[in-house]
Amino acid sequence: MSKPIKKIVCLGGGTGVSVVLSGFKKYPLDLTAIVTVFDSGGSSGKLRKELGILPSGDVRQCLVALSNETNFNDLFHYRFGKGTLKGHNFGNLLIAAATESTGGLDKAIDKISKILNIKGKVVPVTLDRADIIAILKNNKKIKEEEKIINYPCLSKVGIKKLFLKPEVKANPKAISVIQNADLIIVTPGKFYTSIMPIFLVKGISAAIRKSRAKKVFVCNLMTQVGNTDNFSVIDFLTILEKYLGKDVINYVIFNTGKLSFQKLKEVKKVFPRADFIRYDKGLLKKKNFIGADLLDKNIKKLNPADIFVRGANQRTMVLHNSQKLAKILLNLCKR
Amino acid sequence: MSKPIKKIVCLGGGTGVSVVLSGFKKYPLDLTAIVTVFDSGGSSGKLRKELGILPSGDVRQCLVALSNETNFNDLFHYRFGKGTLKGHNFGNLLIAAATESTGGLDKAIDKISKILNIKGKVVPVTLDRADIIAILKNNKKIKEEEKIINYPCLSKVGIKKLFLKPEVKANPKAISVIQNADLIIVTPGKFYTSIMPIFLVKGISAAIRKSRAKKVFVCNLMTQVGNTDNFSVIDFLTILEKYLGKDVINYVIFNTGKLSFQKLKEVKKVFPRADFIRYDKGLLKKKNFIGADLLDKNIKKLNPADIFVRGANQRTMVLHNSQKLAKILLNLCKR
Repeated sequence: MSKPIKKIVCLGGGTGVSVVLSGFKKYPLDLTAIVTVFDSGGSSGKLRKELGILPSGDVRQCLVALSNETNFNDLFHYRFGKGTLKGHNFGNLLIAAATESTGGLDKAIDKISKILNIKGKVVPVTLDRADIIAILKNNKKIKEEEKIINYPCLSKVGIKKLFLKPEVKANPKAISVIQNADLIIVTPGKFYTSIMPIFLVKGISAAIRKSRAKKVFVCNLMTQVGNTDNFSVIDFLTILEKYLGKDVINYVIFNTGKLSFQKLKEVKKVFPRADFIRYDKGLLKKKNFIGADLLDKNIKKLNPADIFVRGANQRTMVLHNSQKLAKILLNLCKR
Repeated sequence: MSKPIKKIVCLGGGTGVSVVLSGFKKYPLDLTAIVTVFDSGGSSGKLRKELGILPSGDVRQCLVALSNETNFNDLFHYRFGKGTLKGHNFGNLLIAAATESTGGLDKAIDKISKILNIKGKVVPVTLDRADIIAILKNNKKIKEEEKIINYPCLSKVGIKKLFLKPEVKANPKAISVIQNADLIIVTPGKFYTSIMPIFLVKGISAAIRKSRAKKVFVCNLMTQVGNTDNFSVIDFLTILEKYLGKDVINYVIFNTGKLSFQKLKEVKKVFPRADFIRYDKGLLKKKNFIGADLLDKNIKKLNPADIFVRGANQRTMVLHNSQKLAKILLNLCKR
C-alpha cells in the first residue's frame, strides 16, 4: 500500500506563504494556504473600500505560487502605473471581478484556481471583513493594518493587546483543513498585520491546539522597521504563544545565514534600519529549535510600480530559500 | 486528399464579428477577425486615454466569441458597477494589463488567445491609434467615435467625408490574411464608427479588392438612431462601395424577418426610433442579394452595468441568428 499523502497547511500572508509553498510544489503533497484578509492599504485595500469586498492581495500571491498556468502568472502580478488604475494590481482586479460576479471570495477563488490550474487550495482565514486594532502599552489605539504598519515606534512603545473588529469567525474550510493536517506551518511575514491576525480569528487557535498535526513556526529573517525592531527569535515566539497558546508550537525554524557586504548594502538602501533577527546561540543546542542558513542569496528587486500605491507595504527584499526550507519542513514531517 | 480548410475573414466591430464567428465555431474552418480599434468612449475609450493604448472593446468581444475556455468567459464580460473602476469591463482591464506588460496589443492578443484557448485569430486592423472624423454635408466636423455616435441628426444632414486622423497603416497581419482568404465578410455593426473605419485604414480596401476571396456584406438588422435613420439595404451598400470600391462586394445578405409585436415593444422601449432596415422587394429576385429571416428571436437583455459607462454605446438588442447566417455564408463558399 502506498503511503498516504501528507497534508500540509501554511498560515500567513502572501509573500511568506508563497515562499514556503513554492518549495513544496514539486513534492506529492496535499497543500493548503490559509491566508490573512485584513489589508486596508494598497490596491487590495482600495478595492475593499470601494467595492466592499474582502481584500485579496495575499490570496492573489498564494494563487500564483500554486499555479501551473505559465501564460497567466506574470500578468497576475502586473501593476498599472498610470491613470485611475494606477497602483492596481491586475490579479487583484481579477479576484475583485470574480468575487463580484460569483458573489463571494471563496467562490472566486474556486473559479480562479481552475483558470490558473493550481496545485492545492487557497483558503481565506475568514469570509467576513474586519480590521486589526492594536492597543499600545501607552493606551493609544491604532486602527487598521496600514496604520499599524506605518506607526513609527510601535515596537518601542509595545503592544498591549491586538484584536479584530468586529470579531470574525473562521472560514469553516480553514477549520476543517487544520483538523486534518499532518503539518501546520506558521510562515514568515509582517508579524502584527499578516501573521498574528490569523490567530485572532475566532476558532483558529483552538483548532490548531486540538489538531494532531506537528506545528512549526518559521521565524522572519529581518526585523520590520517600526513594528519589530530589535526583536529576537524568542520575542516572536513569545507573542505568538500569547495568542496561540503556550507549548503549541513543536518546532521553531530560524535563520543563521548572513548576506555579503554588497548585498546587505543594497537592502540597507531601501530598509536602512532593518536588521537580521537576533537569536541566542543557546537555541542551536535545543532540539525543537532549528537554526540554519535559510537565505535566498538572490535579493528580490522591488517592482517600481509598487511604489505608486498609496500606503503600500514595501515588499520584502530578503526571502527564505524555498527549497532549503521545504527539505527541513519535510524532515520534521517524518520525525 | 482531404479538402483544404476554408479561410474565412470577418471584418467589423465586436458584436457583429462575434455573432458571425459564433456560427462558424463548430465547423472545421480557419477563422480570423479583423477588428476595429477606434473607440473613444466607454471603458476601452477611457483606458485608451489614460494609458495611451489601443482601445480594445471590440477585440475583447471577438476573443470571447472564439474562446474555448468556459471558466473565464463570463468573467471577461463582467463590468464593475462601483468605485473608481465603475464602468470598466474586466476583459478590457485584462487586455490593458497584457498590452502594458507585453508592449503591444498584438502581443497581448497572442497571450490572451492562449489563456482563452481560442479557435482562430483576432487581428486589430491597425496597430496605430487614430480617431474617426466625419465632415458633414453642412461642413460641420465631428471628431471621435463617441461624438459621431451621439450626434443627433447625422443621417439627416448626411456625411460628406469620413476619414481617420492621423492616417494609419494596416496591421501587416490583416493584409496577409485578407490576401489568403477564401471568404471575406463585412459584418453588421455601428456603420460609421465600427464598420467604415476598417476601410479607411491605409491598405485594407486595396488588399480586399485584390484578394481572390468571395466578398460578402451582411447588412445590419436595424437602423441606428441618429446615424443611419431610414437607411435601406442599398443605402448601406452605396456608402460601403464609396470607400471599398464599386462591384467589389459579390453578395449582400439582408434580413426579411420581423419580430412579434410583444418583442418589438421591448426593443422600442430602449430604442424608440430604431426601425428594421428597409429593402426593395426587387432585391429578392437578384442573384447576388440574399434576403432571409435572419433574426435571433431571443432578444438580448441589456446589462444594467453597461449604462454606468459615460458615453457608452448602447448595445444592440436584436442580433442575427449565428447558425442561420453561418449556413448561408458557407453555401456561398461552395458556389
